[in-house]
Formats: sequence, structure tokens, C-alpha cells
Amino acid sequence: MAEAISRRRARGGGGAARRAERTAVRIETAKYIERNIPNFEILTEEALEIIEANAETVLAEIGVNFVNNPAALDRWREAGAEIEGERVRIPRGLARKLCVTAPASYTQHARNPDRNVVIGGKTLVCAPVYGPPFVRDAGGGRRYATMEDFRNFVKLGYMSKWLHHSGGTVCEPTDVPVNKRHLDMLMAHMTLSDKPFMGSVTEPSRAQDSVEMCEILFGKEFVQENTVMTSLININSPMTFDDVMMGALEVYAQNNQACVISPFIVGGAMAPVSVAGTLTQVLAEVMAGIAYSQLIRPGAPVVFGAFVTSIDMNSGAPTFGTPEASQILYGAGQLARRLGLPFRSGGGLCASKLPDAQAAYETAHTLNAALLGGVNFMLHACGWLEGGLVSSYEKFVMDADQLGMLHKLAEGVAVDVNAQAMDAIAEVGPGGHYLGCAHTQANFKQAFWRTDLLDYKPFETWEEEGARDTQALASVRVAKLLSTYQQPALDPAIQEALEAYVEDKKASMPDAFM
Amino acid sequence: MAEAISRRRARGGGGAARRAERTAVRIETAKYIERNIPNFEILTEEALEIIEANAETVLAEIGVNFVNNPAALDRWREAGAEIEGERVRIPRGLARKLCVTAPASYTQHARNPDRNVVIGGKTLVCAPVYGPPFVRDAGGGRRYATMEDFRNFVKLGYMSKWLHHSGGTVCEPTDVPVNKRHLDMLMAHMTLSDKPFMGSVTEPSRAQDSVEMCEILFGKEFVQENTVMTSLININSPMTFDDVMMGALEVYAQNNQACVISPFIVGGAMAPVSVAGTLTQVLAEVMAGIAYSQLIRPGAPVVFGAFVTSIDMNSGAPTFGTPEASQILYGAGQLARRLGLPFRSGGGLCASKLPDAQAAYETAHTLNAALLGGVNFMLHACGWLEGGLVSSYEKFVMDADQLGMLHKLAEGVAVDVNAQAMDAIAEVGPGGHYLGCAHTQANFKQAFWRTDLLDYKPFETWEEEGARDTQALASVRVAKLLSTYQQPALDPAIQEALEAYVEDKKASMPDAFM
Repeated sequence: MAEAISRRRARGGGGAARRAERTAVRIETAKYIERNIPNFEILTEEALEIIEANAETVLAEIGVNFVNNPAALDRWREAGAEIEGERVRIPRGLARKLCVTAPASYTQHARNPDRNVVIGGKTLVCAPVYGPPFVRDAGGGRRYATMEDFRNFVKLGYMSKWLHHSGGTVCEPTDVPVNKRHLDMLMAHMTLSDKPFMGSVTEPSRAQDSVEMCEILFGKEFVQENTVMTSLININSPMTFDDVMMGALEVYAQNNQACVISPFIVGGAMAPVSVAGTLTQVLAEVMAGIAYSQLIRPGAPVVFGAFVTSIDMNSGAPTFGTPEASQILYGAGQLARRLGLPFRSGGGLCASKLPDAQAAYETAHTLNAALLGGVNFMLHACGWLEGGLVSSYEKFVMDADQLGMLHKLAEGVAVDVNAQAMDAIAEVGPGGHYLGCAHTQANFKQAFWRTDLLDYKPFETWEEEGARDTQALASVRVAKLLSTYQQPALDPAIQEALEAYVEDKKASMPDAFM
Repeated sequence: MAEAISRRRARGGGGAARRAERTAVRIETAKYIERNIPNFEILTEEALEIIEANAETVLAEIGVNFVNNPAALDRWREAGAEIEGERVRIPRGLARKLCVTAPASYTQHARNPDRNVVIGGKTLVCAPVYGPPFVRDAGGGRRYATMEDFRNFVKLGYMSKWLHHSGGTVCEPTDVPVNKRHLDMLMAHMTLSDKPFMGSVTEPSRAQDSVEMCEILFGKEFVQENTVMTSLININSPMTFDDVMMGALEVYAQNNQACVISPFIVGGAMAPVSVAGTLTQVLAEVMAGIAYSQLIRPGAPVVFGAFVTSIDMNSGAPTFGTPEASQILYGAGQLARRLGLPFRSGGGLCASKLPDAQAAYETAHTLNAALLGGVNFMLHACGWLEGGLVSSYEKFVMDADQLGMLHKLAEGVAVDVNAQAMDAIAEVGPGGHYLGCAHTQANFKQAFWRTDLLDYKPFETWEEEGARDTQALASVRVAKLLSTYQQPALDPAIQEALEAYVEDKKASMPDAFM
């Protein structure tokens, strides 16, 4: 692997690239989180065993549907499942056994090796919001997202210290034809950021395009030997695996590229109204999906996904940041760890229409659960608004600031001699204060997490400056980040090759908007 | 105890009271939380032992100051401590040994026995904000608090389903003389609510007044046999116990009334900048304070308090909802449980000037840590704003709604046959939906936590209704609650006796405003 990286670097090392590197503003990105704290485990051993036994019953007796996918049915039949129409019944223990070849963690490479991430074990990798067709900012309100918005969110993600990953569909660029927008989206991630990113999953052919563009960016051999994308494969809950998503999964697994295999569940609609029932279905679905990925290519990297929320039984609307969602996240994390798989859940999920107190309550509940629940890949870590319909500029930088908190909390509590601070307690003594003592002088710069956004000013100063709320402070920060953005250096030959690929692809098909 | 309650009821059972009871609107108050989930334990056994050993060193070698309190010094000398001036050095193991007589949990009685709370073990009792000199609402902005505000907050607390306790100084009624306002405040808690409340601690004589008013409300004998107040005794960190607070503690302990004994720490100023150092000081201070309470009256109910936040090293302002504050809360909870004591910390703490996203992020972080960290008595559970300078009307109802979440999360995950929902999964099958299935019909009403405040409406409806943010929704709720408030029934003879007591006390001294 080290050799592959050095080859890649040498290939990309033209004079123009070196000049660009010298003049670039250095962007600080924190290393992905490596937890030094325990996980919170809400389910007892007995509860876990009940749910695991029930999930096996679901797979064996009810089964799952693989739709419009005869090849998948053949693979399952060969592996020992019972096939009836599109229904796949998986004998007890078979799915779990097939999951064993999936790695417990993997490295996703970025074009800047400093930005590589490890997904699995004690790590937590944060990626931005995924999928909204709308954007919102304080000045422009809510409107359909465009490619310009998409590029702006990639830039904000690149400049966000606590965000490790550039994500995928940071918003849907609705001004670009559906069948071509994946090309522009990938181009934005590849050229406007140097963080790792996600591939397209909306058609198997677009997954193939993603692989081919990565071969240009990273080198063909490097892509075959390493994971350079983590892409999002949703299961159509309950228990339906459609040919589009499975087709994309097949492309990625064949190419050793990672997929998050994620039931997408609004509890009460796509799963039972109970937490234990929902966890049973989640486990059955994920085991079936991951087992299938290992039938495609044993050892292909995958992530146990759980995107689960509940429904508001009054309005039918999905809710976020609720106690049931936290319970499910905690429980799903335990189930994933018992399978020995990386876990995806959480993020800055909220139902609110505005980046207001409701949004922040809901988001903070989910972020806390994600950190303590052992999430390894946190999609939607920032910018998510209105149940995922909207990518919010202000909430993007608000949430991204909050992610810094998770880094500090995850460090745990040091108890070395310096941290014990017994000299300081003796020096200050009863009735004194610590502001000037030697221990404070030596430690205050690293002692406490510092926000880049929130307000701690004296009331009078804050009032003189316009009594701004969090959204107003965030608008200022968005404008500042976008106005100071500088593109990270990229070998011009690679840039040209990517542009040529995109141009050719676009010319090869008519525009489609559905 | 049952006998005492029936006597009290009989005594308060006049015809007028019975009539009032018949016409009263019934207010629903949830039972205090009894956790069915584990605690989150951030400190290892090794870390706990280091901190405990260091705390003993602090007490034995550095010691604590009991200021202007010769009687306290005598008590300590007699117990085996070494006294030098006002410094009390407590031999290793002595403070911990004295703490053993403090109960692991206790019942605080309310005048309505349905509102009694148990503080300790797996319980969590929520009480509102305590102490702010200012109030804020969306209409009137920020202004000095008055007695009318105080009464309003008591009314809101009485009407809040998820709030178990009426609290104490819900705001400082600055329009009432300092030496008399405790009388009006107690009167408000006793007559406008029937939930348990806190006594005055600002002078030992005011603690005595609190006991005497409780003797009128509950009956003299009942008060001597039962705990009817939980009051807040702050330690002047570092390691200073002043005569005012200790005088109030002495009154309460002598009368078997409960005290929270709480270091008040802004880390970096009143304690070291490190988490382990701060926890060491907290433990030393609390052990000294609780040991002292047991010297006054062995068995007096007390709570291990930890009100700890960190300082913004730029501005010197206190910060809230930070990762260090959560780490300290989790660690202090472990230390309290190892002492076998009820634990107080957390609440809806925030630094923000407005009930905006910053306030909600900070609050939610603290609420989550308090629930998972094993807090038994959560002061400031709702209404706290601007670092505790402001009681916010809107934030009061916003936070109070959030407390419902904690109740649901604390229930844990049921795995009985109904919760397993295997019939539902079989009934619906792959590709179906659960909205109409039998299991959903039978369970949806209790399945999910429901907000009384937050917005889940479709975007178009929300926009037509004025595109209101959380603060705007909360203003509506505040107005609705205050306009529909009905006073809970109270025996007119008791009401008159309380009024006479307050009138006599006020007449006995000149007004003081400092």
C-alpha cells in the first residue's frame, strides 16, 4: 500500500502541481476520532440474544425479496438459500456465516493521504448531509438546490476542521440532468476537496462511472488494490432489495469499494412501532445485504447501516432526535459490534424547518447517541435540515462546529500526573484561584474545547454587536469560509483527464430529468 | 409515615378545600424517572482509585477552610480532624467514614402526596432553573426579575408534566427586599403549586423561617419525621465553607431536611484546568461537606452535588454544554455512586443569550449527560439562559418539553413478546407497510414520545401558519399555560396561617436591599 501511494504521488508530481502546492492555504483537518471512552450499551445480553434469534427466524421463515435480479437469486440459491419467486429464505446461521468474511475495519483512501480515514473499531468518521433536493440560507430562504450550491457545500466541507469526509450527494443539483449529475458531483468532490468521498448509487452504470473516474484520479491499479469510495446502499424496508441499489452494490463490491448497507426506516411505517421489533428487522435486513455483498466478493468492505427514525402518529411525518431513535441507534451499535462490522448511523438529524432551537435539540441528541453508541461512519454529520429535505448553509457550519465537541469528549479523561494537578491544588489552596497558577499557565491552551462559532461574549458586547442569534453568526461564518476558499492542488493532467471523461460521458447520452 | 400523611390530610380537609378540589383542573405530572438503563461510566477503576486517593491527600494535607464558624471547628476537632486557624485537615479515611451515615436515597414529601419524589438510586427528579436575577421573554426582552415573574415560573412549573419539583429561586424577585423575599418565594411554592420545593439558604435565619413555614404547611410533627425540603448549599470553591451556607446547612440537617452540597466551579478559575484535577477537588469538597452534615445529625439526608463548568480562556466567561463539563459530570456520578450517595448535576445549562440553536445544543448535551451519568436531582432542568443570569419564559417550556424525552429514553428497551413484534413482521412481509397492521393499531398510542411543542407539520402548513421558529411556538405555549392556570386546592386555614406568619415576619424587620 505504501508503495502504491508513492507511485501515485510520483505520477501526480508535475511542476505545476508543485507550484500550486507551495501557494495553497493549508486547511486544518482533524484526524478521525479514535474513541478512548466506552460504548453505551442499552441492551442486555438477554435482549441481544432474543433479537438475534428473531432476526434469524425472519430470514429463515419470512425471507427477503431481491427484485428484478435473477443473478442475485442464482447466487443465493447456490449459497444454500431457498428461492421462491423473488423471495429468498436464508437458513438459520447462513447470513451470519457469510458476514464473517467482511472486514472489521478498512481504510478509505483520499487523494491527499493525510486525509485517509479508517472506518471500524473505535473510530468515528464524520461526513456531511446526503440527499436533500432543497437548500436554505438565511438570505435566500428555501429553494431547489443547484450545482453551484453543491460546489459550495463541498467547499464548506473541505474547510471544516472537524469533518473528515467530503460525503456524496451534499444536495441534489436539480439544474443538471438526472443521468449526468453524478459526473459533475464526483468532479466537484475530486477537484474542490482532497478529502475522501462517496460514489454514485442511482444506477449501476453510474457506480461504474464512479469507479472509472477514481481510476483516473488515483490510478487504475491503486483502485483495484485499495478502497477509495464508501457509497450508500439503502434497503427498501421492509426486507426488499431492489435491482438499482443491488446493481450499484455489485459494481462496488466487485471493485473492492466499500458500501454502507442501510435499512431506511421510519418506524411505524417501514418497521414495527416497537424498538425491539425494529431492531430485529434492521438486523435481518443488514445481515441479508452484507451476506449478499460477500457472495459478490468475499472480503469486500461493508458497513452495517441503520438509518432509523420514528413517525409522528398525528401527522405521519418522520421525526428525528427522539428517544426511540436513540434507543435504536444504541441497540443497533451493539448488534453491529457482535457481528464484528463497522457501524453507520446518526448524524445531525432533525425535523425542524429552520436552524433553530428545535433543530439543535434534535441534532445534539443524535450526535450524543452516535458518539456513545459506537458509530464508525456518521453520514449527515452536518447541514441536515427539515427531515433531510433541505441542506442548510447555516446549519452546516453550526453542526460542523459541534463535531469538535465529539472529538474532545471521545478523548476520555487523562489521569497522568499532569492531569491530576495535585501541585496546582496545593499551590492555590482554600480560597485562592487558579487563573494564574503554574499548572493553568502550562495547560490552558489545550485544556478546553473551543468553539469557532458560538457566542460567549459579555451581554453588553453581544448587544452592541447586534444581539445576533446562532443563525446570524453562522451566516457570517458561511460567507467568510466561501470567500476565503482556495482549491487544493491537483495535477493538471489528472484534472484534464477527468474533464475529458465527463465531457465524453455527457456527450454519449441525451439529457434526462426523470 | 402513612399515618402522618392521613393526619395531615384530615387536618386539611375542610369543606372549602373539598369544594376547591372538586372544581380544580387536574394537572398531569409524570412520576419521577426510574432508570431502566445502565449508567455511562467514563472513568476506569484505576482512574477512580487515583482520584479518590488524591482527594484524601487534599483533605489530609491541604485541608479545607470553615470560615467564621468556631462551632464547626469544634465539631471537626472532636471528630478527629486537625485544626489550624480556620483550616480543617481531615485524616485519610475520616471524611469517607463520616459519609456512611448519609442515606443512599430519601423521599422528599410534597403537600400533594402524589407528587412525592425519591432522590437517590436509579431515580431522576427534575427541578427548574435556580437563581437568575434577570428574566427574558420574546415580547419584553431581558429585564430584572420581579415577584410577578417568580409566581409565573412557579405556575409554569406546576403545569409542566415532566417537571417533578417546583424548585427554589426560580428567579430573584428583585422588587422585594432581600431580607423578606424568601417569605414571598416560599409562599408562592406552597400555594401556587403542590409539587415539592426548596428552602432558603441565604441566611441561617431564613432557613429557620423555611422550616417554620413548612411546619404550618405540613404539620410540625410531620416535618420532624419527614423530609419536606431539598435545599442548595454551595461550597465556595476552592475548599471554603462559609458561615452563611454552613449556618443554613446546620439548620436543615438539625431538622432532618435535605441539602444538596455542591461545589460551584468554573474550571480554570475555581479548580484546575484538567478534568481529573477538578474531579479530585470536587470529591474532596463534597466529602468534607457531607461529613460535616453528618456531624450535625447522623443520617441527615444529603446529595452529592457537582455544578462544574469550564471557562472560555479567551473571554474569561463561563461556558456550558462543553465536552469537559460532560466528562466531569460522568466522572462525578461514578464517584457519588461509590460513596453510596444521591447525585446532583446537570440541567438545561447554556451560555447563549437567546433560546436559539446555541442554547439548545448546549442544553441537550447537558441533559443527555445528566440522564446517562446517573443524576438523581437535576436542578436547572428548564428555563436556564445566559449562564444562569436569566430565567427565560420560552426556554422554560422548551426545556420542559425535552424532559419528556429523558423519561422515554430511561425506560430502556422492552423485549417481551409484544415488543418483539414478530407477528407484525410476518403479517406485513417484504414490501408491505406497518401503518395499518394489528400490532401498530394496538401499540401506536404509547409507542413513541410525543412533543407538546416542536413542529412536525408539512412545510406548506408551517409556512402558512407564519413559519414560526421554536421560540415563537414557545411564546404561544407560555401564554396558553399562564392563561389556563388554576391554583391547586389548599386548606384555607393553612393559607391564612401562612399569610399571618409572613406578615408577622415582614413586620418584625426593616426592609433591606443589600
